[in-house]
Amino acid sequence: MKALVYHGPGQKDWESVPDPRVIDSTDVIVQVDTTTICGTDLHILLGDVPAVEPGRILGHEAVGTVVEVGDAVSTLAVGDRVLVPAITSCGSCVYCRRQMPSHCQGVGGIGWVFGHLIDGTQAEYVRVPFGQTSLHRVPEGVTDEQLIFLADIFPTGFEMGVQYGGVKPGDVVAIVGVGPVGLAAVQTASLHGASKIIAVGRTWPRIKSALDLGATHGISTQDPDWLDQVMGLTDGLGVDVVIEAVGVPQTLEDAFRIVRPGGHVANAGVHGKSFTLPINDLWIQNITFTTGLVNGTTVPALLELLKAGKINPEAMGTHYFTLDEMLLAYDVFEHSGTHNCLKTVIRKA
Amino acid sequence: MKALVYHGPGQKDWESVPDPRVIDSTDVIVQVDTTTICGTDLHILLGDVPAVEPGRILGHEAVGTVVEVGDAVSTLAVGDRVLVPAITSCGSCVYCRRQMPSHCQGVGGIGWVFGHLIDGTQAEYVRVPFGQTSLHRVPEGVTDEQLIFLADIFPTGFEMGVQYGGVKPGDVVAIVGVGPVGLAAVQTASLHGASKIIAVGRTWPRIKSALDLGATHGISTQDPDWLDQVMGLTDGLGVDVVIEAVGVPQTLEDAFRIVRPGGHVANAGVHGKSFTLPINDLWIQNITFTTGLVNGTTVPALLELLKAGKINPEAMGTHYFTLDEMLLAYDVFEHSGTHNCLKTVIRKA
Amino acid sequence: MKALVYHGPGQKDWESVPDPRVIDSTDVIVQVDTTTICGTDLHILLGDVPAVEPGRILGHEAVGTVVEVGDAVSTLAVGDRVLVPAITSCGSCVYCRRQMPSHCQGVGGIGWVFGHLIDGTQAEYVRVPFGQTSLHRVPEGVTDEQLIFLADIFPTGFEMGVQYGGVKPGDVVAIVGVGPVGLAAVQTASLHGASKIIAVGRTWPRIKSALDLGATHGISTQDPDWLDQVMGLTDGLGVDVVIEAVGVPQTLEDAFRIVRPGGHVANAGVHGKSFTLPINDLWIQNITFTTGLVNGTTVPALLELLKAGKINPEAMGTHYFTLDEMLLAYDVFEHSGTHNCLKTVIRKA
Amino acid sequence: MKALVYHGPGQKDWESVPDPRVIDSTDVIVQVDTTTICGTDLHILLGDVPAVEPGRILGHEAVGTVVEVGDAVSTLAVGDRVLVPAITSCGSCVYCRRQMPSHCQGVGGIGWVFGHLIDGTQAEYVRVPFGQTSLHRVPEGVTDEQLIFLADIFPTGFEMGVQYGGVKPGDVVAIVGVGPVGLAAVQTASLHGASKIIAVGRTWPRIKSALDLGATHGISTQDPDWLDQVMGLTDGLGVDVVIEAVGVPQTLEDAFRIVRPGGHVANAGVHGKSFTLPINDLWIQNITFTTGLVNGTTVPALLELLKAGKINPEAMGTHYFTLDEMLLAYDVFEHSGTHNCLKTVIRKA
Repeated sequence: MKALVYHGPGQKDWESVPDPRVIDSTDVIVQVDTTTICGTDLHILLGDVPAVEPGRILGHEAVGTVVEVGDAVSTLAVGDRVLVPAITSCGSCVYCRRQMPSHCQGVGGIGWVFGHLIDGTQAEYVRVPFGQTSLHRVPEGVTDEQLIFLADIFPTGFEMGVQYGGVKPGDVVAIVGVGPVGLAAVQTASLHGASKIIAVGRTWPRIKSALDLGATHGISTQDPDWLDQVMGLTDGLGVDVVIEAVGVPQTLEDAFRIVRPGGHVANAGVHGKSFTLPINDLWIQNITFTTGLVNGTTVPALLELLKAGKINPEAMGTHYFTLDEMLLAYDVFEHSGTHNCLKTVIRKA
Repeated sequence: MKALVYHGPGQKDWESVPDPRVIDSTDVIVQVDTTTICGTDLHILLGDVPAVEPGRILGHEAVGTVVEVGDAVSTLAVGDRVLVPAITSCGSCVYCRRQMPSHCQGVGGIGWVFGHLIDGTQAEYVRVPFGQTSLHRVPEGVTDEQLIFLADIFPTGFEMGVQYGGVKPGDVVAIVGVGPVGLAAVQTASLHGASKIIAVGRTWPRIKSALDLGATHGISTQDPDWLDQVMGLTDGLGVDVVIEAVGVPQTLEDAFRIVRPGGHVANAGVHGKSFTLPINDLWIQNITFTTGLVNGTTVPALLELLKAGKINPEAMGTHYFTLDEMLLAYDVFEHSGTHNCLKTVIRKA
Repeated sequence: MKALVYHGPGQKDWESVPDPRVIDSTDVIVQVDTTTICGTDLHILLGDVPAVEPGRILGHEAVGTVVEVGDAVSTLAVGDRVLVPAITSCGSCVYCRRQMPSHCQGVGGIGWVFGHLIDGTQAEYVRVPFGQTSLHRVPEGVTDEQLIFLADIFPTGFEMGVQYGGVKPGDVVAIVGVGPVGLAAVQTASLHGASKIIAVGRTWPRIKSALDLGATHGISTQDPDWLDQVMGLTDGLGVDVVIEAVGVPQTLEDAFRIVRPGGHVANAGVHGKSFTLPINDLWIQNITFTTGLVNGTTVPALLELLKAGKINPEAMGTHYFTLDEMLLAYDVFEHSGTHNCLKTVIRKA
Repeated sequence: MKALVYHGPGQKDWESVPDPRVIDSTDVIVQVDTTTICGTDLHILLGDVPAVEPGRILGHEAVGTVVEVGDAVSTLAVGDRVLVPAITSCGSCVYCRRQMPSHCQGVGGIGWVFGHLIDGTQAEYVRVPFGQTSLHRVPEGVTDEQLIFLADIFPTGFEMGVQYGGVKPGDVVAIVGVGPVGLAAVQTASLHGASKIIAVGRTWPRIKSALDLGATHGISTQDPDWLDQVMGLTDGLGVDVVIEAVGVPQTLEDAFRIVRPGGHVANAGVHGKSFTLPINDLWIQNITFTTGLVNGTTVPALLELLKAGKINPEAMGTHYFTLDEMLLAYDVFEHSGTHNCLKTVIRKA
């Protein structure tokens, strides 16, 4: 088959590799009908994730069709259409039993293994360990384009942002950072009853996208008075829940500046540097700060919402490719600003 | 002033009575700018609520203007525009400290006192005990017509239905009964992320209203296969949360028939008869059943949502009157089916 | 092997039957080192559970040793010491993913299958379906006698009573019924910070057992003023959480009489008759009522507590037998009042 | 009357001052029967809390007797015995309505006003603003010595440590720091069902106190392998909940080193410096970090637990004085290590 193979920092190719096959009796082999590229893949190509070894097939998101199942798989059959989520879950370790497969011990302590510790989904086929407890059979009547962002980006914004942030009906929510994760938080904050949804970004095209996707207010941190603008929307108290969706010290600092006493800061960004936490100011502020890798435990709920027409994840897909245009898709996504690209959708021809 | 006075079962009049005045230092006198009639008022007139004595001014919902405050009131001033909620809260008893003023001991164990144990809001002025902890100052830019249903019916549907029912994102919710309380539950179920919102009623005009107000599906119990229709919408499992909003044994029985194992039945109806609970079937079904009188603790959140344009309680108001048309308003509301009336709005001339 | 086989109402024997073997790749065969008898087994013998067919091996609780594993089992090995819980969990169905294996669809919609729909644990060996997601490997240093009641009775009291009852620090808790389930609730109420733990029973020997096991107060419903005694312990308000642990209409009625407004009634009893619920009184009382079959999801936590010496489930075991004394053990348990027996412990010779 | 008056950094005296009197109609004047000294008072004397102006009477904890009430006070009367908590609550602001009086806007945005922004409790009498919503009438049969630490230190350990830390039954809890706040967390962790309670300190006399008060394990960070000792108690995963109770960067760093993925770090220490948060490691760890000033909302629950004999806060009181020995009490508390003093109890002669 063909797959996108990582060959060390800055090196990748769309090339022929052996087809995957069932190794463990809990494995499922899935034909990839649709996949996408994640910002994390770009980090890997920059050499930021040393655990990824040369020769690894990248990608951790797919919609596909079951083509082979191991002997232990009883609830999935060849031909089933499935969502391959970013997180693999053994279903029986202490973390999976706590509904936190992000740290599944059955796959080594981090549930994110595709395109990281084992071969991933940017390929014609993918081997899915613990398929029965990891895959989601998808309902009829929904398209791959609607489903693909439920593999990672949508639940990341919802779980790490909205859910970990503890958004409650009536809350004022600010999302700092309007890339894909931030936009997924914008799109899902209403599921917890947010009143105002303030998109805080730098440049207006992206802030505008956030307004199109459900933000009630957009504010640019390039405005010298942006902080006053936020406070003006919250009776001067600060926002109830701030979702950090960038991953640099500045945006995290901004988050702590605009949260109200008793509020939440939910980190959804991937950080490469430590952060100077003003605990001398915060100790008395009754703040809850959360971090985390997506669990994907909300996917069944998101599928229900998708069936009912209550969410529109497909709005994140702006650029479409076929699998054999994989390198072109990477090129566009690496220059997403130039192309005004939010997320790519890469389909079997 | 003029007020609607109860004179025993079947007897009421719009008549002259003395103006209320400050008795306790925590009292606030409010001029009633807008009020409404509740189904409970009709029950009182039928003689169903013996605690209401002849001579009582009815009504427990209002939007108004502060005209006098007691010495202990420091956060409200003459001229403030306020929402008078159905529930009075002393702020210091064991129930108020638990955020359950529905059973406020400071006013005798039941937080509903207006038009019940003390004079109510269907009048030109009303005395509000514990004004500082009971009244809500209302934001600029919202109208009385938007506010009036936050006094009772809207938080009743939201708190006793959606909140007590524990609606979670992705849940399938059924509301049995499409009178005002049921419609308020229909309108607020999305604040907790409901996927399908199934309005279960008898007659189509009301079911149609539910669909207009946010229900995703409408089903009439007059259809012989209505139960199959519900099950067909839930993969045969039953619904996650059923909200009973009528108050008779039949609808409560219907609720228990359509709830799935592990689901919730939230009672929001006022019941006059006991109910034969099939505990022999339910003991193994992991059901949560809740009952209750509204607390009004979500009013601040609902005001935020109203300001942000996320809820439209004014859609419940179908018929408008002035205070001196009070008897006419009662007449219309008593025959709401004939007039296709959901709720009346009764305003100062 | 030898096993306790049900032969229809009133008929059972300890007899030779074929050894169980692996059928599905997820099966685990466990040698039974210790088992016990549940009140439910007596109900089966009375013919109350028609789903149990003649020829069925009874029993749904065991501590044992793995002797064979199916091909799909990777985290358990021959020789592992395990707890066999009453509830089987496939780990992948909609209920297991919601942490509610009591309704596991992988085993047919009710997670209780041992000694019910498949052969059970009152035998020398037992086949455990979905072994990897159902069994609990047990820590060193704890005895079978400490472990056996974690299979069912202890988590039933804790989950269906204390947890579903929502016990919070400081709450006054009443347990109506002081049989094994009630006593398990008595023993675990402190894990949620209960202040007073009131054991409400009929006869004093059992009430005395409850006081020995952690109840702070004991009250007999045979005292004409028992209701006043309860109210006297709660400032006249009623108790915060009532746990019903009998399963007849009278005790459920008692529960609703002593709960305070805003309180919880958690049903843990097995009921054979319907119940007249006074919804005409309760609709305004803000009551939460719960029912359910144990999930066993707290077993990992209970194992931690056991290791730390914080719980003493072995205190429930009053009478000891070997497997070949099974019929004697049944005889004693069937006449538990006469023998002052709480629970039997039945061990491999 | 006599009172302990602050006269600038390093300066204090026990001197004559005017008696307090009712200013606002919601005021209550309380005769101080018992008070204590808090670590915060020592910080004030070091000049670390500039908001405290010279001339201020210090102290924010007391048990006393009502001697005068304002006109608006209806639920308290002269002669009532009350607990004066550290936090004052107006009962009607947005924070009090959210059960977070730590940020009560009615008293200026921080609920801690005694001995900070207004005169405090280290005096013969104290004026309590918003007395009805702030004071707790205390039950008969409990002594001042049992009650005094419910004013601040006990709820601080319980609310900011155990409750904000989200301790659940079975959790392994580590408390880093074994001063009074840490010991209060040790004493209350069992109220949420902690299995292991690990006291992590520096010197053994204090660690020994923690073991006496309920810790199951004690570890000194002066042992080079202390980290391995902690991990050895948690199957190598790290602890579920870490409570930081010192307030310096090193102990907070220790807390983040021993928490498991998915765990909680609850800050209960008062910090004077910022902290370098390793967000580059933590972003993927699903950590919840909380901070906060006590709310005192658990005091009613703690009073129930005290009445029932379930908590022993009096064990914190090691040194006793009369009010006119105030300066001596300060001297002992300032050198608590030398005197092996946990907390002082200062009583009316």
